[in-house]
Order: sequence, then C-alpha cells, then structure tokens
Amino acid sequence: MPRALAFDVFGTVVDWRTSIIGELEMFGETHEVAEDWASFADDWRGGYPAAMDRVRSGELPWLKIDALHRLILDELLDRAGIGDLPDVDVAHLNLAWHRLDPWPDTVDGLTRLKRHFVITTLSNGNVSLLTNMAKRAGLPWDCVVSAELFHHYKPDPEAYLGCADLLDVAPGELMLVAAHPSDLRAARDAGLMTAYVARPMERGPNRRPPRVEDEEFDVTADDFLDLAAKLGA
Amino acid sequence: MPRALAFDVFGTVVDWRTSIIGELEMFGETHEVAEDWASFADDWRGGYPAAMDRVRSGELPWLKIDALHRLILDELLDRAGIGDLPDVDVAHLNLAWHRLDPWPDTVDGLTRLKRHFVITTLSNGNVSLLTNMAKRAGLPWDCVVSAELFHHYKPDPEAYLGCADLLDVAPGELMLVAAHPSDLRAARDAGLMTAYVARPMERGPNRRPPRVEDEEFDVTADDFLDLAAKLGA
Repeated sequence: MPRALAFDVFGTVVDWRTSIIGELEMFGETHEVAEDWASFADDWRGGYPAAMDRVRSGELPWLKIDALHRLILDELLDRAGIGDLPDVDVAHLNLAWHRLDPWPDTVDGLTRLKRHFVITTLSNGNVSLLTNMAKRAGLPWDCVVSAELFHHYKPDPEAYLGCADLLDVAPGELMLVAAHPSDLRAARDAGLMTAYVARPMERGPNRRPPRVEDEEFDVTADDFLDLAAKLGA
Repeated sequence: MPRALAFDVFGTVVDWRTSIIGELEMFGETHEVAEDWASFADDWRGGYPAAMDRVRSGELPWLKIDALHRLILDELLDRAGIGDLPDVDVAHLNLAWHRLDPWPDTVDGLTRLKRHFVITTLSNGNVSLLTNMAKRAGLPWDCVVSAELFHHYKPDPEAYLGCADLLDVAPGELMLVAAHPSDLRAARDAGLMTAYVARPMERGPNRRPPRVEDEEFDVTADDFLDLAAKLGA
C-alpha cells in the first residue's frame, strides 16, 4: 500500500476537452467567429507536448504551462485569421485551463481517498493553475505539487522524485495515478507505484483510449471510486 | 484589497507551545524522565532562528526544518543527559511539529477567508510538515507554499516574492498574515501587503507579546475572525 497518492490532472482528474470546447464556443460567440472548436481544442492540447519538449531540451528557458498554452493559442488564432482580437480577451481564454471541470466521480473519489492517504497533484500545470482549478472545482488536495516546483516537466524523473522528496516518502511509497501509460511508465522507472485510471472519453468519442496490458501497473481502475475501493478507501 | 493571503504558520495559525509541551510531557512519561518541559519547549523553539541563520548564511547547506529541529533536539536531549533514547522515539518526538493544534479561531477564520481569497501557507516549515499538519488539524489551504520551495528561509525576500510568483499575483496583491512584526516588516520591504494578528499567548503567559504601532501594518486584528471581518469576508 502507498503512503501518498500523486495525481496527474489534465485528463485524469478533469475533463479538459469538454471544458475547453465550451470556453472556445463562448469565445467564438462573443467575437462572432465560427470555427470547428472541437478541432481547435484538440490542436491546442496537441501542441503542448512539443512545447514542453522545447523546455525539456533546453531550447526554451523554463516557462509555465500558462505561457506555453499562450504560445500555442496565439499560433492557432493567427492560423484561423483571428490573431488581432483584444489581448485581455485572449488572456482570459488562455486561463480556461484554470477552469476545467472534474469528471463526475472525481470529487467523491478524492474525498474517500483523502481519508486514507495524502493526496496531491503532480501535474505539469503551474501552481496557480492547479490552485485556481482546485478552488473552483472543489478538489480537496492535501497539497499542490507541480512540475513548476522542480523546473522539470514530466516525464523527467526529477518531477516524480521531487514530489516524493517534498512529501518525505520513499519513491516506492508514492503512487502516481494517471490516465496516460507514458506518464505511469516514467513514474515506474523512477521507482514509484502506479495506478492506471481509464478515462476513455478524454480525447472525445472518436478516439480510441490507450491500450494497457493487464498487470502492467500496480492497480488498474475504471474511475476514482473504483480506485478507492481497490485501495481499501 | 489583496487577491491572496499567505499565512505564517508557527504561532500565527497553530499554538506550537501548548502542543509541544504536551508532546514532551508524553515523551517524558513514556521514558520516565522528569524535566521542565515548558522550558525545554522554549529552548527547542529558541534554537530555531539561529539554526536557520546557519542555512541562510551558507554555513550549512539547505536543510528542511525537520532536520534543523532534530539538530536542536539532539543537543537538548544530550544536555539533559538523555541523549541515549531509541532513535525511533526521538524521531517520532521530532515530528511533533507536524502535529500542532490550531488556535480556537483558526479553522473558522480560514474557512471564511477562503471564500473570498486564495489562502496559502508561507512558512519556514517544510512541505510535508505543513501538509501533515493541515490534514490532521483540518486547515483548508488552497495551496501549501514553504520556504523549502525556494531554498530560502524567511525573512529572505526570495520567500515572499517566490510565493507571489507561484500564485501569479503581484507582490502588492499578496498579503502576509503573521503574528511576528519582523516577518511582516520583511514582507513589506519585499512589496507585500501585511496583516498583523495578535497571538498574545504564543510564548506562554509570562512573556509579553510584541509591541506593534498602530498603522504600522495594513491591517491589525485580534484573531482570524476579526481579520475576516476587517477584510470583508
């Protein structure tokens, strides 16, 4: 049994796609712009691993996810021919990532898990993003840990090991909970326990969820309530 | 009005002295040792500014407060002639600083303030200490910020400015709440707003509380409920 649980956030805790599409639709109505906002949302999210890799490789200095999201957003707005909208509105849209809604089981599951374990974020999202999100969505974290604290984005091992160090637990006493096998594999390589939670709708109804082998991770769960049951919480 | 409130913890949020004396008395009973535990508690706390200064000056490398508390504790136990007790028991006693009780108004006050402001710790206590304390005492932080994240103990300006940066607020939008004028003065020098909360019993019934001039700080309050009222929360 782990002593602490560290949660990936985008996709695992919150349904970023539905929230971002909704924010983009509002933005489009305000500015009387018609776009395929679902594709726009997918492209916005899709630009993020490459942007992080530019930081991870040293091509860019450390930048918060808010800044990376803005770089990608500005490119997408330019490409859509609407790169000239007021900065205050684009800045507000960029902070849509602070206003993501949780999956239906998230708050109940975290509340159960919190009774038995220290529960923290371990996200590439910056501290203010995670803090604002938790406040709005009622996510009952014991603490807010971000790649920002280490200036190392996941899957760099510094992020996983740094989280264990801050919580004063051994890597093997910390369990990463994530919907993404690549994140879990990097955590496992750093010595953490791992729990895969299926979020089949993360990328929308037309994309297949990742394929995960039985037994690849310490726990495989359908959602956070199932995870709580499997961890005895 | 501030956008976020950062709280000093030892003495401001929790009554360290009563809690530590209680833990020392239990420790004494278990090991059948009679000491003046109130003085022992005061000496333990009293050794902490000097220990931090050894880190701040570079004489010692970065060490968490848990490690500094242990250095001081080992010296005090040696001096009392009981330096040979089992390490597991001394280690448990050292973590008494994770188990401090809040002042009677703390949880209600923080709960009110949280509805209107982002509320975070800004403590020299390490992240695990603050996380474990909050979990045990029900402190409803939006996020847990510690000097540990900056490797700079208060009153170094990096701690105050680093907290504002993590929350993505300007220094002038962040208010430090503390029972200690020296902490508040350093925060003010770094550009923060300041709220002094009187904790006249922090050092016990026989020590005078600090003298604070009217108007020296942006807000002066009798406790967290008074602070909430004065901030419109």
